[in-house]
Amino acid sequence: MPLTLDPLNAAGETEAARLLEGVYEHSPWIAQAALAQRPFRSLAHLKHALAQAVQAADGEQQLALLRAHPELAGKAMVSRTLTAESTHEQGKAGLADCTPAEFETIQRLNAEYRAKFGFPFILAVRGPRGTGLARTEIIDTLARRLANPADFEKAEALRNVHRIAEIRLDDKFDAAPVQGERVWDQLERLAQFSDPGFKEQGQLTVTYLTDAHRSVAALVVQDMQEAGFDDVHVDAVGNVVGLYRASADGAGVRRLLTGSHYDTVRNAGRYDGRLGIYVPIACVRELAREQRRLPYAIEVVAFAEEEGQRYKATFLGSGSLIGDFDPAWLDQRDADGTSMREAMQRAGLPATLEAIAGLRRDPAAYLGFVEVHIEQGPVLNEMNLPLGVVTSINGGVRYLCEVTGMASHAGTTPMDRRRDAAVGVAELALYVERRAARDGDSVGTIGILTVPGGSTNVIPGRCQFTLDLRAPNDPQRDALVDDVLAELQAICDRRGLRFTCERTMRAAAAPSHPQWQARWERAVQALGLPVHRMPSGAGHDAMKLHEVMPQAMLFVRGQNAGISHNPLESTTADDIELAVRAYRHLLEQLASEA
Amino acid sequence: MPLTLDPLNAAGETEAARLLEGVYEHSPWIAQAALAQRPFRSLAHLKHALAQAVQAADGEQQLALLRAHPELAGKAMVSRTLTAESTHEQGKAGLADCTPAEFETIQRLNAEYRAKFGFPFILAVRGPRGTGLARTEIIDTLARRLANPADFEKAEALRNVHRIAEIRLDDKFDAAPVQGERVWDQLERLAQFSDPGFKEQGQLTVTYLTDAHRSVAALVVQDMQEAGFDDVHVDAVGNVVGLYRASADGAGVRRLLTGSHYDTVRNAGRYDGRLGIYVPIACVRELAREQRRLPYAIEVVAFAEEEGQRYKATFLGSGSLIGDFDPAWLDQRDADGTSMREAMQRAGLPATLEAIAGLRRDPAAYLGFVEVHIEQGPVLNEMNLPLGVVTSINGGVRYLCEVTGMASHAGTTPMDRRRDAAVGVAELALYVERRAARDGDSVGTIGILTVPGGSTNVIPGRCQFTLDLRAPNDPQRDALVDDVLAELQAICDRRGLRFTCERTMRAAAAPSHPQWQARWERAVQALGLPVHRMPSGAGHDAMKLHEVMPQAMLFVRGQNAGISHNPLESTTADDIELAVRAYRHLLEQLASEA
Repeated sequence: MPLTLDPLNAAGETEAARLLEGVYEHSPWIAQAALAQRPFRSLAHLKHALAQAVQAADGEQQLALLRAHPELAGKAMVSRTLTAESTHEQGKAGLADCTPAEFETIQRLNAEYRAKFGFPFILAVRGPRGTGLARTEIIDTLARRLANPADFEKAEALRNVHRIAEIRLDDKFDAAPVQGERVWDQLERLAQFSDPGFKEQGQLTVTYLTDAHRSVAALVVQDMQEAGFDDVHVDAVGNVVGLYRASADGAGVRRLLTGSHYDTVRNAGRYDGRLGIYVPIACVRELAREQRRLPYAIEVVAFAEEEGQRYKATFLGSGSLIGDFDPAWLDQRDADGTSMREAMQRAGLPATLEAIAGLRRDPAAYLGFVEVHIEQGPVLNEMNLPLGVVTSINGGVRYLCEVTGMASHAGTTPMDRRRDAAVGVAELALYVERRAARDGDSVGTIGILTVPGGSTNVIPGRCQFTLDLRAPNDPQRDALVDDVLAELQAICDRRGLRFTCERTMRAAAAPSHPQWQARWERAVQALGLPVHRMPSGAGHDAMKLHEVMPQAMLFVRGQNAGISHNPLESTTADDIELAVRAYRHLLEQLASEA
Repeated sequence: MPLTLDPLNAAGETEAARLLEGVYEHSPWIAQAALAQRPFRSLAHLKHALAQAVQAADGEQQLALLRAHPELAGKAMVSRTLTAESTHEQGKAGLADCTPAEFETIQRLNAEYRAKFGFPFILAVRGPRGTGLARTEIIDTLARRLANPADFEKAEALRNVHRIAEIRLDDKFDAAPVQGERVWDQLERLAQFSDPGFKEQGQLTVTYLTDAHRSVAALVVQDMQEAGFDDVHVDAVGNVVGLYRASADGAGVRRLLTGSHYDTVRNAGRYDGRLGIYVPIACVRELAREQRRLPYAIEVVAFAEEEGQRYKATFLGSGSLIGDFDPAWLDQRDADGTSMREAMQRAGLPATLEAIAGLRRDPAAYLGFVEVHIEQGPVLNEMNLPLGVVTSINGGVRYLCEVTGMASHAGTTPMDRRRDAAVGVAELALYVERRAARDGDSVGTIGILTVPGGSTNVIPGRCQFTLDLRAPNDPQRDALVDDVLAELQAICDRRGLRFTCERTMRAAAAPSHPQWQARWERAVQALGLPVHRMPSGAGHDAMKLHEVMPQAMLFVRGQNAGISHNPLESTTADDIELAVRAYRHLLEQLASEA
């Protein structure tokens, strides 16, 4: 019989701890500490309480937890004492079938890992989908994590412990995240399509209007139709638009606009953009299955182009919905010389400005826009939180700068007679770090940094660098920029340096609409999870819709420290499940408000 | 009648100031202030006292001095009021003959210069030799100095004022620096030879055993013979060796070893190395003219290779004298595939290890080694001092380093969750600056600095850089290195970064022999100049001889902030004259000690 929350909440301490036995390896203190948070309002709440108990423990307790784990075993290692659960999990991952060479590699890496970190390599071998990682994935992960700094890897090991516990709890509660699993599988299926040159290397790259891009669109159409949308079509710029009608028709019936993009960067992850298309599709599927109509229609748009990879036309897909399409784009050519107009024609699109202008939506017909997106950052992953509520899409400014000093002999120029351009920039780098941190939610980065033609024995006469400064609202960003540029001036004055700064980008911030943000917050709370509010450092389609209607976003935790624009981008079926439920909750809130 | 020091020292204040009228443009206060330092022990002392008076003045007085100067005039500008002296000087520089285009350029640059700095462009148009700069040199200098930082350019303008005053004083005292002028002309003559590909571009590059290199050697042989050396020959590695015999022969008679190198870096200056060959030649010329023999012989060696440009065989010339010749060098090939052995054979050298081994000197036969060298740094130039006494040739260590953090999204990674490799290196750069400055005479430089594959919107995951750390003695250098590496470790620990540091070079310091250093100090004092002791940041041939005999070096001021390894490297006939006199004084000290 699967466990449920009621007996766990009702049980005495000893009995309750017994019910959770085996979730964390040989460490009953974790369950005991988490029980103080009862009653658990959801399985997600229980998982979070357990993770919090570990996080609140001291370093020695955490190390003991890690050391209580069995080593990742190859075939010949069954003699080591594994819990039945561990044996089962490692068996599922196919580790029992590894080749002698693989076995030897695992043994060697295991030994190096333990020697470096002082605890065994721990990996949730059943993976983000729960069905088990391939052997090569396991070995690659071991080799990769071996290179991590010690404190980071300790945290990563603990996160894997939590993920192992999560899967064990799903089993114990017989609570498979079936919606999340379906979305996960659908995104896996989308990822089979990739542009020529990338597909062969197993890399995911889908740029605007390539064959792979059209195949993805066709699959999205099919998935929408199959989910029960009433009307699905591909529009004049390649967006896939699915409509799920409201309970009534008529002039007063408005629509919820939602979605995200299906194009990718080069060598991309599978969740960036696409997650925000399939979470709404999952909800519409449920509504259709329940034959439930809401007092408003749901319009899900899979945007054809957000990343600006093939053409310099970032946000083309969402921009078209607000009338923001630059006619010059049609004549822009890709690296192979194909103009966007030609690409559109080949894809069977009308390729006329009239058709594109027709995509413009009347904001009065819409309630607002919501978007679900993978976080693309480390915050939720570090906090052991599956979901985050976005307060604002940060406004950003970029500069390309150069500081000029005087190149001179590194041996013969005394320290007090130097005009070292690089040391001036170094001083600025530390200021940017301090100044952005002071705001709490601003960020500042020097991403490109180089001394052109530098030599070991020459004091840098020039130093080139970029500035990327972002904040959740424009006044905060502008104050940050002013301070950084003033500091650069002060540093240069003090050090006898000169500088140039050319602004290469400036984007306005898009704060979430308070009412819409509050809906996401209530949805997260309803799942039994704490609300974590955070700015979005990256740009999203919601920025475009922000110009004409209220918008708010929900972030889903990314694995691997939130890495994105990278094949290691990952999220779990459990987290997607929670996103689907939060989304459904938001739909129901809107329905009840109507 | 030329002015002499005696009446100047004896005169009342008003009369003395009148005697110096016109040396500094419309600024009698300078002479008045300098007179406090009477009695002037030499013309060099007087020049220095005047420069010191300007240096001690406040910023407004200095600006008034600069503003008292006439603008650099083209042909059509004679209507401006120039002093007779200025007109004469600018006439000598050929400015009266400039083309309309040149005139226009000068006018435009003059206007820009005055707008930027607030005073007219001042240039000692009679140049380092005293015979006048070419028009193109003047225009190039104006354009170059226009780019200087304001405080630096103000100092450079004042240095030009001092140089103008120096030439006016030379005229007033009828004290042409004839020895310095001859050496200056000889070095100019040497500079006519340059390797193929460089000569065509007007660049000076003379690398080991090229045709140009052999031509230079032949000219040195000729100059030594003409100066009165008793024996001149080219040795087995291409060094030119000149011997001026002692007053007596016999077993007890020792030699003074001296000289410097005649090869150059690419696109070199004319004084690096060669000055240290021709200053001793000038002294021997004088001795021979006086038919004076000293109780010791003088062996001047023009070293064939110090820079390690054509082959990686730095210090080959001086190394051969101490038995330091790597046999593997003979098989080393240059960029064109020519081995050193082949190059030696083509140059008519024996190219055998036996012949080279025969160059090794018996230290017991030598008193010691002295070397004159252009400073290659800004110190003497800034201090208005023609000569400096070297306390030590710095020991140095070089490292090639890389810091690794974690590359992540510049927008989505909060400031407190970053592992920014470049900011870690920035912190180190500021530490290196502070730590080296603390010693006073240590130097530390990060010359190469780069974020490999950096992007504006990606937090640097890697940062590569070099460390160049030098100090006047090995324990001081080692303490500097230890502290810098410990700080790097601490920074990386604090920031969750890793690093690697590979040592690519380590050279021992060569402190000057106290007795020999004292001889240079007495020689400088005898010229009426203050003694300035300083380490040598660059390596010199004296480092090699240091291994077997006492050594000490004398530095000569470089113009243009002491720039070296650059065509702008320069020194004046006046400064060379003082070096010749100091060298002669050292010879006489040695003679009287014998």
